[in-house]
Amino acid sequence: MKQNETLTKHISLILNGLLLQGLTTAVIAPGSRSTPFALALAQLAREQKIQLFVDVDERSAAFFALGIAKKTNKPVLIVCTSGTAAANFYPAVCEAAISHVPLLVLTTDRPPELTKVAAPQALDQDHFFGNQAKDFFELPLPEINQDSQDYTNYVVQKSFQIAQSNPAGPVHLNQPLRKPLMPELPIKFNQDQQKYATLPNTPVLPTNLITELHASLQKKRGIILAGPNQRTTSNTAMLEWAKKSGWPILADPLSQLRGLPSLNVITCYDSLLKTKSDKLTELIPEVIIRTGQTFVAASLALFLKESHATIYSLDEGNKLNDYTKTATFSLDISSESFFNQLPPVSVHGEWLHKWSTLEKTYTSINKIDPTSTLNELDVVRVISATKNKERNLFVSNSMPIRDVDSVFQPSTFLRVFCNRGANGIDGVVSTALGISTKATDSLLLIGDLAFFHDMNGLMMAKKYHLKIKIIVINNNGGGIFSFLPQAGSPGFEDVFGTPLDIDIEQVARLYHAQYSLVTTVTNLKEHLSTPAHTLEIIEVRTNRKNNVDLRQELVDRFARQIAKEL
Amino acid sequence: MKQNETLTKHISLILNGLLLQGLTTAVIAPGSRSTPFALALAQLAREQKIQLFVDVDERSAAFFALGIAKKTNKPVLIVCTSGTAAANFYPAVCEAAISHVPLLVLTTDRPPELTKVAAPQALDQDHFFGNQAKDFFELPLPEINQDSQDYTNYVVQKSFQIAQSNPAGPVHLNQPLRKPLMPELPIKFNQDQQKYATLPNTPVLPTNLITELHASLQKKRGIILAGPNQRTTSNTAMLEWAKKSGWPILADPLSQLRGLPSLNVITCYDSLLKTKSDKLTELIPEVIIRTGQTFVAASLALFLKESHATIYSLDEGNKLNDYTKTATFSLDISSESFFNQLPPVSVHGEWLHKWSTLEKTYTSINKIDPTSTLNELDVVRVISATKNKERNLFVSNSMPIRDVDSVFQPSTFLRVFCNRGANGIDGVVSTALGISTKATDSLLLIGDLAFFHDMNGLMMAKKYHLKIKIIVINNNGGGIFSFLPQAGSPGFEDVFGTPLDIDIEQVARLYHAQYSLVTTVTNLKEHLSTPAHTLEIIEVRTNRKNNVDLRQELVDRFARQIAKEL
Repeated sequence: MKQNETLTKHISLILNGLLLQGLTTAVIAPGSRSTPFALALAQLAREQKIQLFVDVDERSAAFFALGIAKKTNKPVLIVCTSGTAAANFYPAVCEAAISHVPLLVLTTDRPPELTKVAAPQALDQDHFFGNQAKDFFELPLPEINQDSQDYTNYVVQKSFQIAQSNPAGPVHLNQPLRKPLMPELPIKFNQDQQKYATLPNTPVLPTNLITELHASLQKKRGIILAGPNQRTTSNTAMLEWAKKSGWPILADPLSQLRGLPSLNVITCYDSLLKTKSDKLTELIPEVIIRTGQTFVAASLALFLKESHATIYSLDEGNKLNDYTKTATFSLDISSESFFNQLPPVSVHGEWLHKWSTLEKTYTSINKIDPTSTLNELDVVRVISATKNKERNLFVSNSMPIRDVDSVFQPSTFLRVFCNRGANGIDGVVSTALGISTKATDSLLLIGDLAFFHDMNGLMMAKKYHLKIKIIVINNNGGGIFSFLPQAGSPGFEDVFGTPLDIDIEQVARLYHAQYSLVTTVTNLKEHLSTPAHTLEIIEVRTNRKNNVDLRQELVDRFARQIAKEL
Repeated sequence: MKQNETLTKHISLILNGLLLQGLTTAVIAPGSRSTPFALALAQLAREQKIQLFVDVDERSAAFFALGIAKKTNKPVLIVCTSGTAAANFYPAVCEAAISHVPLLVLTTDRPPELTKVAAPQALDQDHFFGNQAKDFFELPLPEINQDSQDYTNYVVQKSFQIAQSNPAGPVHLNQPLRKPLMPELPIKFNQDQQKYATLPNTPVLPTNLITELHASLQKKRGIILAGPNQRTTSNTAMLEWAKKSGWPILADPLSQLRGLPSLNVITCYDSLLKTKSDKLTELIPEVIIRTGQTFVAASLALFLKESHATIYSLDEGNKLNDYTKTATFSLDISSESFFNQLPPVSVHGEWLHKWSTLEKTYTSINKIDPTSTLNELDVVRVISATKNKERNLFVSNSMPIRDVDSVFQPSTFLRVFCNRGANGIDGVVSTALGISTKATDSLLLIGDLAFFHDMNGLMMAKKYHLKIKIIVINNNGGGIFSFLPQAGSPGFEDVFGTPLDIDIEQVARLYHAQYSLVTTVTNLKEHLSTPAHTLEIIEVRTNRKNNVDLRQELVDRFARQIAKEL
């Protein structure tokens, strides 16, 4: 076999193996060492066997892939050349690891004979993402040896399955390649290539455990604490169970529960806990069932600790991930399986009513102030008020996700995303754009610093004519720091505030985006009333100095209303 | 001791320890966990004890620090918060590792009790940069224990020394911190804190080795192959030795030798080897002494292999880094020490004359074509022609450094930099800007893709009013790929060419840069005749399609001239 035949066969094995596993989408960053993959993927894209995106900035590329994988819950392939290209994938790999997003990271590499001898653009790519990758495989060089080919086919399919199995995560494949790097085009894909499948199963709770659990939950003051649920939106079993059992569900903004027509869904918890109202003593639960990932509200950690409740943690993948260290029992099971198997329990009197009354009270005061200028909380309220079921809302870290946690009470269900694993402000634009490729309507809420951090991500919107509305809350700097004890310290503006004076309109022009400066509630409502039809950047200018007061006033108003009404 | 007293003492120990070692410059990215370092560094900056830069984008921040460290050869401190912030440092850490640039990377982290329990923004930062960090230290939590304090003081000073010792590199310090994070301001620094120093020494060659070496080099056709020398610009001993011994020095563009008034310095080697001229048989050396890091010209690797010469590699740090695998003998010594200790050898007849004649011939044909439109090689020639001894030239990877290797024959010496470790196109703008903070005049030569990749880096120029001229060679895409076998393959423009249609003028406006579109040689000369006085972006539009022909014509012209003259 000629060398490029061997190479061609190898590339065909790998990509065909991934297609057999169900790969639908790839993102590549241009480079030389990755040449055969780039050409093969371009061919597969022309043949409409995959969707292919090309992004010059590998950091953005990886977050873009992360967004697609978040939306589809299927591994997305990202490919780059050797050297620092792969290092630019690292932030998204970290985020994928913690928020359990399936990614297949394929880095190409110099062959072994160019390793550790200072060859140009060669660095040690072995276990390059360290503890952050869910698994690492060094793929063999293209070989005519049949065992090696069988291994290649097996290991790429295995890596795909590992990436998507619970808890999902990023799997790193490193592929050393020798020159020449040109495959024989068009590449032929073998229809008979062996496929490996893992058959699905469902964990079953033993009958005696169900009986015990059921007994222990009977007529208790129980709460479901629903944390972020990014992997699946199926909350039907939980909602049904809660309804029949009369349990409130404290619904994290990423739980995919807010906006559903259910009396059990409670959103006021963060503001409520901050009121330190006397009413809180009546709301201490005896039992808590926790689902989902780490919740956004820091106030809940203290609530869990001080409740002294028996806590059941539904901990699929059994990572025992509980930074509050309060879970009494952990169960390696999804919320869906759990609530499908557990019969509802008897209602504990007025328990749910207490919670839903407070929720109603909160809803009555969590209103847009039509007399004030458009502020950061009102932006979230306007998003809550507009009805578009197809809308996918991506919320940036730092202040936006906290504000959404506090005041987001949508009048209709919309899917909410956030990079709530490592909680970085990096890659936010790209992740949202990745999601937009698989959505009919997309909205991103982001601050000016995060917007700046991933401005390069906008290139993909321009290049692929992606449709998204981006609301940039421009308070000219890092708003969140005003909430920390260092606010006002000497040098605060230099090392925390960091005003960048970004001209958002210029940025919009650079990426051919439609730009609007919005100053009123009415105007913002109008802008959000239609689905995104192009790249639209909506700037809302706010004042960092008002930030702390604005949030405190809401809590105070809630406290007063509780005192008055209840 | 109160908790914040312990914290304050800890931060003071660390930063004072670094000051004792000679720290002069720090770059921080804003964040919460790093609060005490940010406030302490802001104080030190106000007290003019260090120079402090703040950069919101950690990727750019780390490259900016890399630039400063490249220019000063002293460790620069970079600080960030926990989470993906640190992952954004990775590309610059990789580059620093391979190109031996001293960096102190201080990542702050959640305390041990928040590790691996899914606490917000917590990821496993242990050995976070894997094999790329030269060393890794987990700093202790702030403690009142004296041994722990002594260890903290020792280990930060040790890390500084490791970062700068030969071969220099990035050292990673991970600092877990508990809340509250506010130190007592102003922080008092203890004048009596113990300082640890490593005294300098110089490797001495044994007398018998000098005698043997000297004998083996006598009257031989010898060549010095001077690779990149970024750490020091001292080439005096080598030049003196070569002059007396009649040896040509093949001078890599990063050797810091080009432009020096020496007949021994040869720059035509890359074009010469590409001519495949008959004359090459007369130029085969018997002995080669190699210095510096991996050279830019790929053609030299084949030359080394085919020469069958005895090769001495001056390999300071003794990494035996030789991807050509041709070095017969390695010596763990700097070029300066070596040539200071070795007496010059007798000249081998007309050997140097042959080389310098070829060099003269090349200089005569490596000329600007005044009749043609400004092309990519002419841009380098204009840079060569302008005289500004204080100028620091930073050259981007990909095409610019290759063109500089081929045609850069400066009429006066100027310091040349490039991220020639991992050879990435990432972080180029930031590295050049970092250098500009310690230089009186700076020039960056960069292509449009690399410019786009690190556009965020320009923020530092706007914020700190940095002075630099940036020539953007805008051929709307990845020019280098046209030289590879895949040029013209199906999908080539999509996955390799990748035109981004960046409006460079808009970018300039966004960052308040002075912008010029330059189309003629004369106009470019004018622009380069003065030192940089602000952020100036000079766009030169070229055509990727002409790229291959343009370089081939130069080689053909040289071949014809050799045939005619010699």
